[in-house]
Amino acid sequence: MITLTSDFGSPYPAAMKGVIRRHTDAELIDVAHDLPRGDPRAAAFWLRFVLPEFPPAVHCAVVDPGVGTDRDALVVRAGAHVIVAPDNGLAMPPARALAGGESDVEAWTVAVDEPASETFHGRDVFAPTAARVRTALDDAEEPTGDGGLTPAAVADALAAMDDLSPASDPVDVRFPEPSVERGGDDGAGDSTGEVVAVDGEVLAIDRFGNVITNVPGALIRGRDWIRVDGDLTPVAETFGAVDPGERLVTVGSHGYVECDVNDGRGDSAFDLRPGDSVRLVPDSVSL
Amino acid sequence: MITLTSDFGSPYPAAMKGVIRRHTDAELIDVAHDLPRGDPRAAAFWLRFVLPEFPPAVHCAVVDPGVGTDRDALVVRAGAHVIVAPDNGLAMPPARALAGGESDVEAWTVAVDEPASETFHGRDVFAPTAARVRTALDDAEEPTGDGGLTPAAVADALAAMDDLSPASDPVDVRFPEPSVERGGDDGAGDSTGEVVAVDGEVLAIDRFGNVITNVPGALIRGRDWIRVDGDLTPVAETFGAVDPGERLVTVGSHGYVECDVNDGRGDSAFDLRPGDSVRLVPDSVSL
Amino acid sequence: MITLTSDFGSPYPAAMKGVIRRHTDAELIDVAHDLPRGDPRAAAFWLRFVLPEFPPAVHCAVVDPGVGTDRDALVVRAGAHVIVAPDNGLAMPPARALAGGESDVEAWTVAVDEPASETFHGRDVFAPTAARVRTALDDAEEPTGDGGLTPAAVADALAAMDDLSPASDPVDVRFPEPSVERGGDDGAGDSTGEVVAVDGEVLAIDRFGNVITNVPGALIRGRDWIRVDGDLTPVAETFGAVDPGERLVTVGSHGYVECDVNDGRGDSAFDLRPGDSVRLVPDSVSL
Repeated sequence: MITLTSDFGSPYPAAMKGVIRRHTDAELIDVAHDLPRGDPRAAAFWLRFVLPEFPPAVHCAVVDPGVGTDRDALVVRAGAHVIVAPDNGLAMPPARALAGGESDVEAWTVAVDEPASETFHGRDVFAPTAARVRTALDDAEEPTGDGGLTPAAVADALAAMDDLSPASDPVDVRFPEPSVERGGDDGAGDSTGEVVAVDGEVLAIDRFGNVITNVPGALIRGRDWIRVDGDLTPVAETFGAVDPGERLVTVGSHGYVECDVNDGRGDSAFDLRPGDSVRLVPDSVSL
Repeated sequence: MITLTSDFGSPYPAAMKGVIRRHTDAELIDVAHDLPRGDPRAAAFWLRFVLPEFPPAVHCAVVDPGVGTDRDALVVRAGAHVIVAPDNGLAMPPARALAGGESDVEAWTVAVDEPASETFHGRDVFAPTAARVRTALDDAEEPTGDGGLTPAAVADALAAMDDLSPASDPVDVRFPEPSVERGGDDGAGDSTGEVVAVDGEVLAIDRFGNVITNVPGALIRGRDWIRVDGDLTPVAETFGAVDPGERLVTVGSHGYVECDVNDGRGDSAFDLRPGDSVRLVPDSVSL
Repeated sequence: MITLTSDFGSPYPAAMKGVIRRHTDAELIDVAHDLPRGDPRAAAFWLRFVLPEFPPAVHCAVVDPGVGTDRDALVVRAGAHVIVAPDNGLAMPPARALAGGESDVEAWTVAVDEPASETFHGRDVFAPTAARVRTALDDAEEPTGDGGLTPAAVADALAAMDDLSPASDPVDVRFPEPSVERGGDDGAGDSTGEVVAVDGEVLAIDRFGNVITNVPGALIRGRDWIRVDGDLTPVAETFGAVDPGERLVTVGSHGYVECDVNDGRGDSAFDLRPGDSVRLVPDSVSL
């Protein structure tokens, strides 16, 4: 299986599929081709969320504002998964998620011949690399096996590929951690006390305008009201708990706090964009 | 085969595909993931139109404004097809279309464990259920057969699944029937006379802005002009029969009367939205 | 393999897939379903770019403003590829690209029974025709072969299909050639001199607003500045060579000169639309 992710819209991904089909009959599954344009950080966020749902696969992910510059092409092994992507950081957060930690992530640099195109490395570099990796893994699989390679077998198969060399220092993207303020009754601050405020950041906006923050859901569990940048907002498990058009704070399927509107757009209602800071203050302090 | 339908946009459906791939290698075909958001009625309309084109398959359809509430998850058998969907009515009209009538439709409720997420049942409930149904059907198929199960064999396979129990009263969606006025020369009304007016309703608007009504095409067959809410409009078999920008009434591929504009948007030109009533008066009365 | 291309949006292409699945298990790959509506010329441009990336396949391409008129349905062989499309010209430029020239392109007309629908020939005519062609080719393949038919074997298989007859004069689309002005130091004009101006035409705008012209990239190779309709614009190999929001001229992956904006829309910045003429004057003349 090869999954495909990009910001290319259409019909460019079909050209990548055609190239892959010249090399291998592996199944092709689209993750998304409408990711925010030229934003490796947003791609990293979404891939970290989606890729761990898949069984071990080759993932070809191309959001590449540096196309045509001398940035490298990477092959990143994460457990028994492989991500093929430009060296701009998008591969590393999903790789850590796939590997269940840092310890089982390895990166290689792809030796790239003078490409046919300066502007479509998705077709000319990443698709053929993904196809060659897929073929190398398929050739390594025991025909009598259950179809899955161990991480060690994947590592061996990649190490045997002529055009890969260990990457010395791949670009990484780190998502910011929120700053959590805890306190006691005296307000003096107590790191074991209850949460009195969280200063977080907006990681992404989804298609529905839901504002996805970097604040783990556990930090607001059990609260009924949250002030979002000062505005009192109900916490709800479902959109339907508030009337259409009303704002709510909820924990999304990715485990993070979202600022949403039932049947509306949270980004507009809360005036929040990716990278904005957002302050969450639970009700027990404010009410 | 498993078909996938939702209002999720991207990349959420890819998470569903990843989950399914952990269970089964069944082919995955997307029907649509850009259906009107949170509108089970629109989903029912489109699925009733599209699903009957498929050979028997498992259809996973998630348009689910009630996600996280206590609405049930359903498995609906329609002939040798199976629809996996929330219990909000969207499954029933396509089920009747797939079964060729009411008599061969059965619904089960899925016993749902405490899900990992309150907000992404597509990934956590419906995708794994569709995968388990698909696997149950595949296991039931004779390896020497021609690949198709009878409706009775599908029913048996579902009945043998531990986590399904008969649904007592699944939510249903019924599309309104138009009101047809027939008359004779004396205008006294005559149920066997020709159609003098039809009061219908807008069922859906497609991507092109074509206004799809609930009026069967047969009711206007042979007419050259129709008054749509009073405005005289030509009846045409093709868009090309009128000039670009001109309005027309035609019968769509779904068999219903549409109010369209050649190379333009019918919804804007006729000022019609889903659920609006629309009065069609054939020309032989009005001219 | 059957590739699918249309301007249908969703969920109409799924109906085509369902129909095909009633006939054959061939792999289905979407090229695009959001092509410019009713524009066979734009479809021809994009298919000419994408289809040659694929190994030999059946390509079902439906952008069909004449649906329901008496325009023919075509089956076009190009080498070992087959395109199934309405007879409006969209098939011919990609067919020439697939065949590597005119000499190995043959067109047949499909005998169409009275279709079930006047408005959805994608489902009722082109999808079943593509499925029957695919089946005819699969039946012609030697089970012990490597899966590929020669162009001659494809031609034989098509010639044996009952409902195909040679097309006498299929509609064609020809993309305009740019007008190139060359000159010497004396400005007297010299067909072997360097390029002093090119009068081209906008062929297409892609999703990013990049303006794709019909001017071959070779004509501007080595130039640093180009006047685009008089405005001095840097020539760059990559978007990143100019600041965000800045205009550039580059050579796209299709080999043509593009007028683009880094992190912005070229069509707005240059005020260019498909079909517009555009005059490119290299810097060595103007600076």
